[in-house]
Amino acid sequence: MNLEIERKFLVVDDSWRSAARDPAHFRQGYLNDEKHCSVRVRVAGGRAWLNLKSVTVGAQRHEFEYEIPVRDAHQMLDLLSCKPIIEKTRHYLDNGPHTWEIDVFEGDNAGLVVAEIELGSPDEVFEKPAWAGAEVTHDPRYYNTCLASHPYKLWRVS
Amino acid sequence: MNLEIERKFLVVDDSWRSAARDPAHFRQGYLNDEKHCSVRVRVAGGRAWLNLKSVTVGAQRHEFEYEIPVRDAHQMLDLLSCKPIIEKTRHYLDNGPHTWEIDVFEGDNAGLVVAEIELGSPDEVFEKPAWAGAEVTHDPRYYNTCLASHPYKLWRVS
Repeated sequence: MNLEIERKFLVVDDSWRSAARDPAHFRQGYLNDEKHCSVRVRVAGGRAWLNLKSVTVGAQRHEFEYEIPVRDAHQMLDLLSCKPIIEKTRHYLDNGPHTWEIDVFEGDNAGLVVAEIELGSPDEVFEKPAWAGAEVTHDPRYYNTCLASHPYKLWRVS
Repeated sequence: MNLEIERKFLVVDDSWRSAARDPAHFRQGYLNDEKHCSVRVRVAGGRAWLNLKSVTVGAQRHEFEYEIPVRDAHQMLDLLSCKPIIEKTRHYLDNGPHTWEIDVFEGDNAGLVVAEIELGSPDEVFEKPAWAGAEVTHDPRYYNTCLASHPYKLWRVS
């Protein structure tokens, strides 16, 4: 088990792109729609994982992850997952001791770009780049679980 | 992925016990409470598994299963699982080409004993022993997911 501490920010411009590396396409979905725990299937870069994580408002979560066969993962996404499936391209950006993960969403969440940083403790100091806007760590709308059930395109309509 | 075909019966007496083998204690729980799919963590005989299965009324289900570390499984049961945890002892009983799995429940489900048989096709012929009573394959109350959220002890009170 890992205890995961992440902070999440909206991305306000494209200035991060020139320094980003290793873009990878992600196809992922959730096998549940629970408040207390998420069960995620993810296919990325020719590999696949099953991830189980406590869902609590805030930055600390209990997390378990196991690699599984890619074929199983696609079958689970097609047969068992809540719809719609989330599709996004993740880019990585090194910044001192930290690595930002920048997710550019597609499909029903197109237009949304968010950046996450993983920290060693909730109060760890880190540099906030100019392209990072409002913090949304504590906003449930930006949880990937919620983006699956209430995608970004519906926000703009309402 | 396996396509699982099972039929389930209530057990009406103890006459199966003399021929049963390999009793194993199970501790298991569910990480969700969904109608369309179950995510189960099980510890049995010093090993542990994560099981993901479509939930459909009837006998055929899509199923995926992965072995995981026992320590992870106990942490998931304690931290992420819906409560109460299901505890039961499973016994095996060979009968010609088939093996019956007989679950004697404990804790909040004490008093309930059910037997399952796995078949190669929905219409496969099998011998129904004298200790097997009413078929409950299609009764959602006997799903282990439901026994976790609505345990047997509450049935008798209501």
